[in-house]
Amino acid sequence: MRLLLISNSTNAGEAYLAYPMPRIGEFLRGVREVAFVPYAAVTFSYADYERRVQARFSEFGIRVRSVHRAADPAAMIRRAEAICVGGGNTFALAKKMQEQGLMRAIRNRVKAGVPYVGWSAGSNVACPAISTTNDMPIVEPESFRAVGAVKFQINPHYLDANPEGHAGETREVRLLEFVAANPRRYAVGLREGCMLRYENGRLELLGSRPMRIFKKGLTPYEVQPGDDLSFLL
Amino acid sequence: MRLLLISNSTNAGEAYLAYPMPRIGEFLRGVREVAFVPYAAVTFSYADYERRVQARFSEFGIRVRSVHRAADPAAMIRRAEAICVGGGNTFALAKKMQEQGLMRAIRNRVKAGVPYVGWSAGSNVACPAISTTNDMPIVEPESFRAVGAVKFQINPHYLDANPEGHAGETREVRLLEFVAANPRRYAVGLREGCMLRYENGRLELLGSRPMRIFKKGLTPYEVQPGDDLSFLL
Repeated sequence: MRLLLISNSTNAGEAYLAYPMPRIGEFLRGVREVAFVPYAAVTFSYADYERRVQARFSEFGIRVRSVHRAADPAAMIRRAEAICVGGGNTFALAKKMQEQGLMRAIRNRVKAGVPYVGWSAGSNVACPAISTTNDMPIVEPESFRAVGAVKFQINPHYLDANPEGHAGETREVRLLEFVAANPRRYAVGLREGCMLRYENGRLELLGSRPMRIFKKGLTPYEVQPGDDLSFLL
Repeated sequence: MRLLLISNSTNAGEAYLAYPMPRIGEFLRGVREVAFVPYAAVTFSYADYERRVQARFSEFGIRVRSVHRAADPAAMIRRAEAICVGGGNTFALAKKMQEQGLMRAIRNRVKAGVPYVGWSAGSNVACPAISTTNDMPIVEPESFRAVGAVKFQINPHYLDANPEGHAGETREVRLLEFVAANPRRYAVGLREGCMLRYENGRLELLGSRPMRIFKKGLTPYEVQPGDDLSFLL
């Protein structure tokens, strides 16, 4: 299994996909074409999304082909050399993936070794469920079940504090609620500018910031890039 | 129909329910006992939640009786003088309310004139659906359908900006996605320290900050306390 699960497409003030693109290029070395899942797009078209991603992937000579163009998107996934799932709204993404049978199709291909790249919502759907998304439930998917390529839950765009003077729940409070309600699952807070890479049976944190670990009964704690993450597997 | 839909229980730095309590006391004048729905609590017990709310409601001589104590919570709602739904996790709240038939029971009582007070998640569930919550989908409810006392969607704890340097979606972007996916619905961004009161056929914004209005095809705009909100009804 080969996974590259990225927190966010773009750091504040940077160009689209600027920071993760070298890692994506390295991860997809030798791949000529990726099947791209654009269904997290809500306020722009799937074709526009494909074009934006193609513009960056072209730098590495990779062709991006969006599944929305296929008469049978699941069949396209079954033939794909590599799979890429973009960010946006996780509920919109999950709903359309479920309607088209893509959760199962992607699970099967990923377990067979096809490389998977996701960012933001695309990292959420690689988890057992979409239950640690930050997104608004603007549409209702069939269920919260997702691809389940990994056994733990990722919270992308993990954020430490609320804006000054705001009393809403912090991200830490939300994840403590998640582990209280899901006592067997680990959840990880993946900060912006960071990603998880799974290759050769090994899970690694890449980036310059620590990742925050949540599990019921444990005080949340930080792991650093280079630390052993085998407890998550 | 009589509704008091509050953005947040507590402003940053204040005591629990400090700012809305005078308005709640005024709204519930003459009421001796409220049926309290505590199911948004995840990391503390329903009994603790009942005690915390009772401590504040006692100042107005109102007894708080939590539905989790009743053998038949829906029957307790059907007999209630007034209904109060507290904040916490909206998905946990909706799941338990649906399991116990409280969405329908509350809808019926509210339409019959029984006063309803909600804050945060408790304001979300007064809407047609839970689709404009900020909360993490830590558990899966039967559906996103809610009480539907009003026809528009409330986003409580509405927040204008992200923390400096954070690239995740702003609340405005999330609500623009909601209205794109739900073109017939209004959504309102109810800022902290504010509430909506519906009485005598009239909807009012109370508080010192404007509310932000979202609808597909409209540029988001602000309404002030005192403005005519009849377009939402």
